[in-house]
Amino acid sequence: MRGAQVRGLIVGRFQPFHKGHLAVIREALRKCDEVIVVIGSAEESHTEKNPFTSGERYQMLLSSITPEERARVLIIPVRDVNRYSVWVSHIESYVPPFDTVFSNSDLTRSLFKQAGYEVCRTKAYNPKEYSATEIRRRIVSDEKWTHLVPGPVARFLEGIDARQRLLDAGMSPQKKKGGCVAR
Amino acid sequence: MRGAQVRGLIVGRFQPFHKGHLAVIREALRKCDEVIVVIGSAEESHTEKNPFTSGERYQMLLSSITPEERARVLIIPVRDVNRYSVWVSHIESYVPPFDTVFSNSDLTRSLFKQAGYEVCRTKAYNPKEYSATEIRRRIVSDEKWTHLVPGPVARFLEGIDARQRLLDAGMSPQKKKGGCVAR
Amino acid sequence: MRGAQVRGLIVGRFQPFHKGHLAVIREALRKCDEVIVVIGSAEESHTEKNPFTSGERYQMLLSSITPEERARVLIIPVRDVNRYSVWVSHIESYVPPFDTVFSNSDLTRSLFKQAGYEVCRTKAYNPKEYSATEIRRRIVSDEKWTHLVPGPVARFLEGIDARQRLLDAGMSPQKKKGGCVAR
Amino acid sequence: MRGAQVRGLIVGRFQPFHKGHLAVIREALRKCDEVIVVIGSAEESHTEKNPFTSGERYQMLLSSITPEERARVLIIPVRDVNRYSVWVSHIESYVPPFDTVFSNSDLTRSLFKQAGYEVCRTKAYNPKEYSATEIRRRIVSDEKWTHLVPGPVARFLEGIDARQRLLDAGMSPQKKKGGCVAR
Amino acid sequence: MRGAQVRGLIVGRFQPFHKGHLAVIREALRKCDEVIVVIGSAEESHTEKNPFTSGERYQMLLSSITPEERARVLIIPVRDVNRYSVWVSHIESYVPPFDTVFSNSDLTRSLFKQAGYEVCRTKAYNPKEYSATEIRRRIVSDEKWTHLVPGPVARFLEGIDARQRLLDAGMSPQKKKGGCVAR
Amino acid sequence: MRGAQVRGLIVGRFQPFHKGHLAVIREALRKCDEVIVVIGSAEESHTEKNPFTSGERYQMLLSSITPEERARVLIIPVRDVNRYSVWVSHIESYVPPFDTVFSNSDLTRSLFKQAGYEVCRTKAYNPKEYSATEIRRRIVSDEKWTHLVPGPVARFLEGIDARQRLLDAGMSPQKKKGGCVAR
Repeated sequence: MRGAQVRGLIVGRFQPFHKGHLAVIREALRKCDEVIVVIGSAEESHTEKNPFTSGERYQMLLSSITPEERARVLIIPVRDVNRYSVWVSHIESYVPPFDTVFSNSDLTRSLFKQAGYEVCRTKAYNPKEYSATEIRRRIVSDEKWTHLVPGPVARFLEGIDARQRLLDAGMSPQKKKGGCVAR
Repeated sequence: MRGAQVRGLIVGRFQPFHKGHLAVIREALRKCDEVIVVIGSAEESHTEKNPFTSGERYQMLLSSITPEERARVLIIPVRDVNRYSVWVSHIESYVPPFDTVFSNSDLTRSLFKQAGYEVCRTKAYNPKEYSATEIRRRIVSDEKWTHLVPGPVARFLEGIDARQRLLDAGMSPQKKKGGCVAR
Repeated sequence: MRGAQVRGLIVGRFQPFHKGHLAVIREALRKCDEVIVVIGSAEESHTEKNPFTSGERYQMLLSSITPEERARVLIIPVRDVNRYSVWVSHIESYVPPFDTVFSNSDLTRSLFKQAGYEVCRTKAYNPKEYSATEIRRRIVSDEKWTHLVPGPVARFLEGIDARQRLLDAGMSPQKKKGGCVAR
Repeated sequence: MRGAQVRGLIVGRFQPFHKGHLAVIREALRKCDEVIVVIGSAEESHTEKNPFTSGERYQMLLSSITPEERARVLIIPVRDVNRYSVWVSHIESYVPPFDTVFSNSDLTRSLFKQAGYEVCRTKAYNPKEYSATEIRRRIVSDEKWTHLVPGPVARFLEGIDARQRLLDAGMSPQKKKGGCVAR
Repeated sequence: MRGAQVRGLIVGRFQPFHKGHLAVIREALRKCDEVIVVIGSAEESHTEKNPFTSGERYQMLLSSITPEERARVLIIPVRDVNRYSVWVSHIESYVPPFDTVFSNSDLTRSLFKQAGYEVCRTKAYNPKEYSATEIRRRIVSDEKWTHLVPGPVARFLEGIDARQRLLDAGMSPQKKKGGCVAR
Repeated sequence: MRGAQVRGLIVGRFQPFHKGHLAVIREALRKCDEVIVVIGSAEESHTEKNPFTSGERYQMLLSSITPEERARVLIIPVRDVNRYSVWVSHIESYVPPFDTVFSNSDLTRSLFKQAGYEVCRTKAYNPKEYSATEIRRRIVSDEKWTHLVPGPVARFLEGIDARQRLLDAGMSPQKKKGGCVAR
């Protein structure tokens, strides 16, 4: 139906969108003609793990890619279903046909492989630093973080006062090694 | 936040996407820098009123616009909430900020106006013919319909055997004036 | 638990609240110490059958009863569950304990009776006129309707431009005998 | 995984279970080692189209089959998802693996075929009479109906006063040719 | 619409209703003509964090206020939506119009402020003791707790055997400083 | 309605089905004519706590009982409602009538007792070992586990590569006493 075109699929929450995400999209763009970027957990916002709305994440993503990339990237927000047994069908119903899934998550890889898709690992891109969890911690703790995200994302997050958003969502400033950050 | 840029918003179900829809998007593109096209009822498919999945409608839309238009159009599928009291907030959470809503629906206009948005009527574009309901009727009744949709949409619908889809969804062939087509 | 006090329960959608509703509440107040008035379909609004929000219906109801009545009436909005098998439990979880259900609906009577409640028919109060469907028809058709609702409700509905709300929701003016009003 | 065993799948609402349903199950049992009978719309009850609960339908079905059949039949209630794009995955998550789907519905056949299942038409069994819609009409209209359902179903329906259930659900007695029975 | 009347809004879960809650309501009543008290998480019950049904919480609240207060208080249960992006619209659809929100939660304050409401902090009222979490711990651990709630609430909770309810919900007796109470 | 027949009810998640579960079913079969086995959390799968689909759990259960037992056991998957106030009604709508509930959970016993059912404790069956949590830990940690489940379940779990399923779901190998196993 799409001729010889190859479409890749990437799923992420992008809370917030950072340089590691951008690197993965660019890696996929080198291997595919077009790349679908699914903004997962689209309906979540204002929580510690998902502080930004789907619309805000769309905006961050859009402002970080070049016009050439934009012509080959399809950004599509998809809400969670919380039922892995129907998850692949759920994604399929939201996006145009695709061929290859780029993911390092065992569950994502397993579910799409079982549904007949080609699955591709992506190169790690210093995941200790380019981690959305770490970036949220740094923002709320007033540590240096703007170098970890594309320039337009830094400006966007400052424009909406991301630190206050994270505080409102219940986060509190903490040191990196100060115990159990994640959850 | 977006400088002097103006963003428009259009909401439709695009079952299927036709030349009337395309004309509205182009009208909005003349008045705005960017246009968000919300694919409504995103999770509906395989029914008489909503035969095509959100992914299929995305594909139809994408294949109908020029590369120049693609650089200024944001296609975003949004599921129904069936609660008009939260509908505007629901849309807002899914899409980047926008300024003007293009719609001829009284309810849509009223809800967005009440939420502080500028609301714009669009020119009618021969709504008798360029109507998705009419096109679905023609497809299932084996009447001429391909001239009513952009070329790539015609090829796409033939490729997925749209007529069979409509039959599967419970439609049956009928004459135009043969009674109660809609609903 | 509540001593010798008797509590009645009335369920309605109150779209809008009219003098027939008020008469039923007053009939129940004569037989009970307190009356719980459940605003059903609480999350519906802006549709032909349910044009007004739960908050608006609460306001109409509250403004129509006297201070003495207010001291004995509990107004509680409850959303639909659309599963009759759990409906009584759903209501029970939302409201304080009650003894008697006032209703003329066979289904309501049957479900509560089966759950062990006393069930009471209410006197009809000219249901041809004091019908919310008829009042909505009159409002949208610019016929006389204010005499059918309590004074504060008439003022409230005019204040929010109820006619425009009904038009926005898709209603159109029609004669009383002009065919199939209801849906 | 199941050796050479062949499992069939039948989906129905069984409102109520009648001799036509039983004939289809027996036809499938002749072709398969085991038959999964999915009770669809499991969470619906007390409405005109779905008067009986899933538990009641399970009971009707169970009481109508022989011990030998029971050893080869798996009755599994499944709620609706109202999203055809995930419907097959939804069913798959609820039932053990199966090979062949028995159905005369175009949509059911199309969705399962697309998912790679073998699909089989069943013989029609005088569908004018052995129709659940017609049986509900007869029950509420006090016409002869017990010969259309298995004996235990007739006794069960009389035991729960099915006629009153249908009246409570809003049905009213009507002649067979008296117009638009179905909805 | 409501003339010069000022309405306040308070949101709480009231698990159970205690003297700290009552103090906040009274503080709001001094500043407003009427106060809407939203019973949040209305559909939750029988869990560690939300042991009591919405109806039970309504009853506790109602029995704790004076007749004069009842004439100026509107108690309205509202279920969670778990989507902060639509939360204010959700509340607005359930309650009559209001002007001022009384809350000490950063997120609540931020969301309502962004929607244009006046937001007011309330005085703390010894939050160490007048804490619903602490009261639940005391009830289940058989420590003194009745002095922390209004008299009618103490009687109500004893009447429904609140301690057994908490045990059923999975709580176990524990000392105050005995580690990780919450979550 | 069912004559002198006594039906028992057992609710479990069966993640996976083990010899302890089988012992409880057999204990109930000694006391009742028929036993309904509800597969709870039916729609959950691919998570640490609920790795297997409802269909897989149905298959495990079915393959573990004898033909004689199958003639007296009704296996019925039921999704969670996450609202304890309607939970008993929810179960009742899914299953045929029953008399006695077999459970050691305080909450389950309390909710069914309050709804008028007889409630029965079951004998513990070495719960330290015959625990689904422990079996999942052993599977993922490559420790001996097949002796804890019926033979057909062991073969089934090996056939679907249960260890990989658990790893995909996010579990990691761990020693029994190695800290906080449960969640």
